[in-house]
Amino acid sequence: MTSESSRDLRGVYAAVLTPFTDALEPDLPRFVAHCRWLLASGCDGLAPLGTTGEANSLSVAQRLAIIDAAATAGLPLGKFIFGGGSCALADAVTVTKAMLAAGAGGALLLPPFYYKDPSEDGLFAFYSEVIERVGDDRLKIYLYHYPQLSAVPITLSLIARLKSAYGATIAGLKDSSGDWANSAAILKAFPGFGVFTGTEVHLLANLRAGGAGCISATTNVLGPLAQPVYAGWRAADAEVRQQTLTVARVIFQDYSLHAALKEVMALITGDAGWRTLVPPNCPLAPAERASLAQRLKALPQMQAILARAA
Amino acid sequence: MTSESSRDLRGVYAAVLTPFTDALEPDLPRFVAHCRWLLASGCDGLAPLGTTGEANSLSVAQRLAIIDAAATAGLPLGKFIFGGGSCALADAVTVTKAMLAAGAGGALLLPPFYYKDPSEDGLFAFYSEVIERVGDDRLKIYLYHYPQLSAVPITLSLIARLKSAYGATIAGLKDSSGDWANSAAILKAFPGFGVFTGTEVHLLANLRAGGAGCISATTNVLGPLAQPVYAGWRAADAEVRQQTLTVARVIFQDYSLHAALKEVMALITGDAGWRTLVPPNCPLAPAERASLAQRLKALPQMQAILARAA
Repeated sequence: MTSESSRDLRGVYAAVLTPFTDALEPDLPRFVAHCRWLLASGCDGLAPLGTTGEANSLSVAQRLAIIDAAATAGLPLGKFIFGGGSCALADAVTVTKAMLAAGAGGALLLPPFYYKDPSEDGLFAFYSEVIERVGDDRLKIYLYHYPQLSAVPITLSLIARLKSAYGATIAGLKDSSGDWANSAAILKAFPGFGVFTGTEVHLLANLRAGGAGCISATTNVLGPLAQPVYAGWRAADAEVRQQTLTVARVIFQDYSLHAALKEVMALITGDAGWRTLVPPNCPLAPAERASLAQRLKALPQMQAILARAA
Repeated sequence: MTSESSRDLRGVYAAVLTPFTDALEPDLPRFVAHCRWLLASGCDGLAPLGTTGEANSLSVAQRLAIIDAAATAGLPLGKFIFGGGSCALADAVTVTKAMLAAGAGGALLLPPFYYKDPSEDGLFAFYSEVIERVGDDRLKIYLYHYPQLSAVPITLSLIARLKSAYGATIAGLKDSSGDWANSAAILKAFPGFGVFTGTEVHLLANLRAGGAGCISATTNVLGPLAQPVYAGWRAADAEVRQQTLTVARVIFQDYSLHAALKEVMALITGDAGWRTLVPPNCPLAPAERASLAQRLKALPQMQAILARAA
């Protein structure tokens, strides 16, 4: 049995997409509406301002506007884990302070990702400076391991050092490596650590190993298929639930992920504005749009999800 | 003969180090003093806010403060190429507008470097948005090719497309790949393009091929050895001048570059505060400090440079 205190952040999380205006500003009303829709579509909590949310393509002011919009709308921020990472120490501190002031449950923090092969001392110093400058006991950091994009891995050794120095402030980790063996190794080394897999393909395995859930890009669309896995991970048909989810999830692997998800949101909502991404991200090409739609529509479990389309 | 209009930015440039206070804020008076010292030590122009300047570790406000300090001090900003790149489109626009308003000669722009394997369309769109949002005919962009850190190369194809669309606004490129064959290929494809090599090891070869000069981290210290190469690249002893420079330059390859340069500045100035870097960058370990100092002191051509020490 895993410990599951009511304060733990657990379950199906979406790495929330950021909708944009034509001028490439975050579309705040549409963002809030999307958050509400996700929470009503199988998500236990939300993780805006991550990779999927194109946070690194946004200024600090734009990120703060998103946090403020979520707070002003009365969204349940205690269940939110906002991205706060930046190459710039001062920016990571500013965004993390703002999310805590707004009541966020957790902070998803990338390592600084410009300089490659930083020393473990350097990474420890970065996180230490953030923690000490934020200076707030409510801070719950989720380390963000995404070596394919950050090129700076979060190692077991770094986790151990941070946990030793900062205890419960180091609450968990989002493992976006796609390597289940890595998530399993972290859970084995640190039982009870709040490990979220970055793909819901590993959701059942993660829950069985004592992990916290998933924080996934594709649960922007597939929350209704992921929630039955979380809710029923001890059920007799848990494997079937996972398989139903996985079959839909793997389709997205063949497309640029953010663009594909925005394409599906455009299909579901009938709002072409969903296709806008901030450069260097680009929308899907027409042939990709057609192929993605065709493949998703062929799946029985996608019918209810896509039927929300106008 | 290459075209050398008086408006061209050419010669020995230092990628200016940023000195920090103990609180990890840019130390503006020390930054200005260092700029003046560099301009009196063999540098034809300066490139603050690049990789060596730890610009990606700084907030936009901190970067703007550095530009403002340089302008307020009356430094010759027409010879300055400030780094303005960012993963965030809005930040790249903000910093680039500020440097132009201050009178900067050029803008060194990294590609957005978080998302890996961006499409050429996406990179073109990023630079296009920056150019159009800045909306200033004085803008001279130096594309920043540093694949070891950005992981996003500037290809010949992208350069051709940008030059075709924006003409003289695409003024040149800093090639920090360390691969002279790449710089040579760019100059062959685009004669007269303002190519700066990222290392002064290739300074003579670059000038002979029609390039503009070097923008180098190590010319924070080695400007007095680099200037004779630039001033005398057509002289009979040009190879000897280059070799004298190269022998000193290659010593730095065995150390973390920013830390090593700050160590030498601490040695030269007697100011231990020069050793401060923003995490994840770290100062040299004591054994490295000793070895670096010993190796530099053993070179005859370093005597005058190091003799500035108190």
